[in-house]
Amino acid sequence: MPRWWSLLAAAGLVLLAVAVQADPLPSWNDGPARSAILGFVERVTKPGGPDFVSPEQRIAVFDNDGTLWSEQPMYVQLAFAIDRVKALAPKHPEWKTRQPFQAVLEGDMKSLAASGEHGILELAMASHAGMTTDEFAAIVRDWLAKARHPRFGRPYTELVYQPMLELLAYLRENGFQTWIVSGGGVEFLRVFAEQVYGVPPEQVIGSSIVTEYQLRDGRPVLVRLPKLDFVDDKGGKPVGIHKFIGRRPIAAFGNSDGDREMLQWTTLGEHPGFGLLVHHTDAEREWAYDRTSPFGRLDAALDEAATRGWTLVDMQKDWKVVYPFAH
Amino acid sequence: MPRWWSLLAAAGLVLLAVAVQADPLPSWNDGPARSAILGFVERVTKPGGPDFVSPEQRIAVFDNDGTLWSEQPMYVQLAFAIDRVKALAPKHPEWKTRQPFQAVLEGDMKSLAASGEHGILELAMASHAGMTTDEFAAIVRDWLAKARHPRFGRPYTELVYQPMLELLAYLRENGFQTWIVSGGGVEFLRVFAEQVYGVPPEQVIGSSIVTEYQLRDGRPVLVRLPKLDFVDDKGGKPVGIHKFIGRRPIAAFGNSDGDREMLQWTTLGEHPGFGLLVHHTDAEREWAYDRTSPFGRLDAALDEAATRGWTLVDMQKDWKVVYPFAH
Repeated sequence: MPRWWSLLAAAGLVLLAVAVQADPLPSWNDGPARSAILGFVERVTKPGGPDFVSPEQRIAVFDNDGTLWSEQPMYVQLAFAIDRVKALAPKHPEWKTRQPFQAVLEGDMKSLAASGEHGILELAMASHAGMTTDEFAAIVRDWLAKARHPRFGRPYTELVYQPMLELLAYLRENGFQTWIVSGGGVEFLRVFAEQVYGVPPEQVIGSSIVTEYQLRDGRPVLVRLPKLDFVDDKGGKPVGIHKFIGRRPIAAFGNSDGDREMLQWTTLGEHPGFGLLVHHTDAEREWAYDRTSPFGRLDAALDEAATRGWTLVDMQKDWKVVYPFAH
Repeated sequence: MPRWWSLLAAAGLVLLAVAVQADPLPSWNDGPARSAILGFVERVTKPGGPDFVSPEQRIAVFDNDGTLWSEQPMYVQLAFAIDRVKALAPKHPEWKTRQPFQAVLEGDMKSLAASGEHGILELAMASHAGMTTDEFAAIVRDWLAKARHPRFGRPYTELVYQPMLELLAYLRENGFQTWIVSGGGVEFLRVFAEQVYGVPPEQVIGSSIVTEYQLRDGRPVLVRLPKLDFVDDKGGKPVGIHKFIGRRPIAAFGNSDGDREMLQWTTLGEHPGFGLLVHHTDAEREWAYDRTSPFGRLDAALDEAATRGWTLVDMQKDWKVVYPFAH
């Protein structure tokens, strides 16, 4: 290699490094949301500053559905449950005439919705229980590899928000632990959270069903039972955060009323933390919805954002790109 | 400072560093337990070796009572519950004639034991519930500062095992995450685990009661309810490990039958991990007990150790010192 080439390459790398340092959030447009994030991180990481927070206390919590990836036209895990019920249907002839299974098999989303919380729960148990934890992880992994999003024709794990991936990385570079705190199932999330978000399994909090320890032919297994253990939503989010982390977060990121209590827990304590809501305002690149959406309804929390000083992300204005593949 | 002095000091530091590297477990006598630990860590950390384990998979789990600190003459948390019931008694005149409270107030340990699991649970609820999580942590902190161990006259947090502190540090230096997985209450443990063991709150798993989120005068709190949430003992230990960590440990350290399933879960999987039991054989420096002890009974797990290849620590032979203050 000629010497001038390697010199040039080295100079390029230095320029790149400077550019990265100068702009840790390249997919975020200049604006109040971006400024609020940068200002917050600067304040809590400035040694000797009045708002300095020691690294072990830098806990950031993120909702998943609608905050890190798309939750339309339905929660990804619901799409999984529906596919799973269809796959299991041959073994359950009784489902043909039993709700909510009949609705799923006939593609009747109205009756499915009408079956309410109880119906969804029954669906979840039938599709998520009755196997070992290893078997369940394999089923989810397999489904994620094959399933495609109905609008974009891509794997669901590509429907993640590029600006939020940058935010996760930026916070970790600044000594934060980034935790996921989702209403979704913890064992569903853990299958992809590390690869997709860089969040290791032990930093994922979610809803769960009861598991039971057994020795089978001398091999230990955990069997998933059709019994609810914990619902990590609304008031359950601070409960889950306290149960798993045992520290109060200093930053919380959500997008719906289900995240309201988590943002309160983070921002209304003795040492007020940072709260942010992603507002889905972009029907063209993603979806536009808030107060009446069946998935990710943002109503009370939207009103509260103004009085609590929570940062609102206007997806249309604040994000240069939405998905990594649109880069 | 004369130059020769600083040179000497530097040389001394180098020698010290070499010494530390040469002996990471200075309070452990040469013997099969020490060799097994060193051999295991060497195997899993040797890059390119057949048993190499990547750092993010290096999960080590430790029982607390009887494994990291003394559990005689009774579990520390039971001593806390008893003191707490005595402190609350003036507000509960009915306790004078109601078991298990009467037994506690009269110091009648036999009747207390006779009240069984149900009695202990009732005691735990009366002493551990009915306040916010912040208030409970303050009560525990205060108690730990004042309470003294009946035999040694020292704070309970000094009754920790020096060899195990060295083991925790040694594992962390080798890229391990060190988790506590205890039958004790998670919120009790988290008050001292970071300071005493270097284990942060988010790496403590324990038994728990239900908490409820509330806004009180605009301030968010979590209230501890007298309702059992999770028992982290026996088969509950692998369940808790999976729930909180989501990875299978590669090393597990315990001392009683309550740790048996945790050791099975760690050592009988596809990639067999390391299992170790502390055997309390030292009546002089600590206590000698196993098969019939009311606290920390070691019976079935002791038999299983031989067939499973679990390492047994003979406290009397393997440990040069037991407590840091005896150093």
